[in-house]
Amino acid sequence: MKFFKMLLKPLIIFYHLTLSFSLVVLSTLALSTTVYAEQGVTKHIITPSAGQQANNQDEWRTVAIENMVLLSLPYGEVVIELAPQFSPKHVEQFMRLTQAGHYDGNKFYRVIDGFVAQAGPEENSSLDSSIPSLALEGEWPTDKNWQFTLVQNKGLFAEQTGFKDGFALAHNPSEASAWLTHCPGIIAMARGNDANSGSSHFYITNGQAPRYLDRIMSIFGRVIYGMNHVQAITRTATIEGETEVASADYTPIVSMKMMADVPAAKQIHLAVKNTESRLFATKLIQRIKRDDAFFFKKPPAVLDVCQTPVLTRLLSQ
Amino acid sequence: MKFFKMLLKPLIIFYHLTLSFSLVVLSTLALSTTVYAEQGVTKHIITPSAGQQANNQDEWRTVAIENMVLLSLPYGEVVIELAPQFSPKHVEQFMRLTQAGHYDGNKFYRVIDGFVAQAGPEENSSLDSSIPSLALEGEWPTDKNWQFTLVQNKGLFAEQTGFKDGFALAHNPSEASAWLTHCPGIIAMARGNDANSGSSHFYITNGQAPRYLDRIMSIFGRVIYGMNHVQAITRTATIEGETEVASADYTPIVSMKMMADVPAAKQIHLAVKNTESRLFATKLIQRIKRDDAFFFKKPPAVLDVCQTPVLTRLLSQ
Repeated sequence: MKFFKMLLKPLIIFYHLTLSFSLVVLSTLALSTTVYAEQGVTKHIITPSAGQQANNQDEWRTVAIENMVLLSLPYGEVVIELAPQFSPKHVEQFMRLTQAGHYDGNKFYRVIDGFVAQAGPEENSSLDSSIPSLALEGEWPTDKNWQFTLVQNKGLFAEQTGFKDGFALAHNPSEASAWLTHCPGIIAMARGNDANSGSSHFYITNGQAPRYLDRIMSIFGRVIYGMNHVQAITRTATIEGETEVASADYTPIVSMKMMADVPAAKQIHLAVKNTESRLFATKLIQRIKRDDAFFFKKPPAVLDVCQTPVLTRLLSQ
Repeated sequence: MKFFKMLLKPLIIFYHLTLSFSLVVLSTLALSTTVYAEQGVTKHIITPSAGQQANNQDEWRTVAIENMVLLSLPYGEVVIELAPQFSPKHVEQFMRLTQAGHYDGNKFYRVIDGFVAQAGPEENSSLDSSIPSLALEGEWPTDKNWQFTLVQNKGLFAEQTGFKDGFALAHNPSEASAWLTHCPGIIAMARGNDANSGSSHFYITNGQAPRYLDRIMSIFGRVIYGMNHVQAITRTATIEGETEVASADYTPIVSMKMMADVPAAKQIHLAVKNTESRLFATKLIQRIKRDDAFFFKKPPAVLDVCQTPVLTRLLSQ
């Protein structure tokens, strides 16, 4: 394993870094993340809120069971963490549909490698037409007290990117608005041309972040376990000259259940990195600095929020 | 399929757009792609060279059989287009090793979801130690006559990004240097800390582009067919709390052959979008403009080169 192994080292180093590394130092270093810095954009790591500071030494956050969905695919189990704090109406409807067994047996009928895997009930079926449409939850207003963990200033798609509660997001202070970003593994509601036409069909992103969909779609969760099984979903989109994929070969949803409704023996309990912790902020800095010898030439001091992992940990029962 | 379908429409529209759409118009529109434009960076779509202009009406480029590699995985066939024009020494060695059967039976021993699938011979085996190391081919010098199809000015990782011969690249005019970018599906040589220590172990990127590896690794090709099978490779990297994956379960390379050495009946013949064509440039503009009604609110007028598809077409024998 001598090859390329040094790339894992920074991750390991993070775990051993002293927690006394102060936020003052972090803020200073964070400034260097902006390559094309200009006036008019706030440049600082936003400190955790009072409530978060109480436990910001915690490296891991246990994911609340009531926010976890168990998506069973023929290839294995997938766990989604829902985000009611950002998209409450979509989460409420998705939970209700899941508990009603709405998604069991649905097919992934629109699967494009490097883009999305989309599923839902058969078109024009009673299942399809009976679900109320939802008003878009594409972004939310922020004020000066709104806080998150900054990853990058002055992106091309947003003035700032960062994390909150493990979810990648973007923030435009100039518009006092923030939104969840289309990083790989997010789940969002599909819709027609009407912004408020999403109801039950959903997609999971499976490739390079389609950030041009930010703010105009309702992201309501992210895959925190089993993304490899999402990547195994049969692609329905063929290239020119290839045989069409028969609908009988589409990947089915074996079952979709709220984790709390799964028999205890089959529940999966997870923790994710606490993106409000000092340790996480320290890791971000390490990731920007790339001090490892492997980086004989330093990359630009920038981070892509969608290429910044928020790791998951499997908890025993 | 009413949901989300509008996103495919722009792709279809591209095919019907008039070819008379002049490069003058394209250049004008391209200027608007730079959100945070500053002085000092060239802002124009670089016109195809004289040789390329001769056939720049061709929507597709047939991939030369001598540059194609057939990677057979247990899940299906993968085709890689090699890039001898950018990384000649790595391509030469990779071809020689492939023809010698070096990779047949190798395992993907380092597979991290959202990052890379890495393969090579067993460490410290005679196969592993007998291969000469290669000098890094991470970037190449450019001059004022060097040309490519511009996608975006003023990225965070490079002054410009674009395509040449279907390969995503970046260009810093201020340094007179260009390099292939770590978009999903590229193949590059793994190495140790020594920049010039790559020899035979390789990796294929399978997630959000790790652009921080640009210029310090030798990219020498890209997957143009069967990326879904690459995504099916067994992940060897587990999360905390999970059982280790036994090496017996690692995905093997069934065989790796130069396409020209494959029996005719089993050869796969492919074309890819001609990134030097006017039609491709027109598509880029459409992709920036997002004129479809689905985009009730326009995204920022920027493109991520790694999220810009260069489509493949299966040719009959």
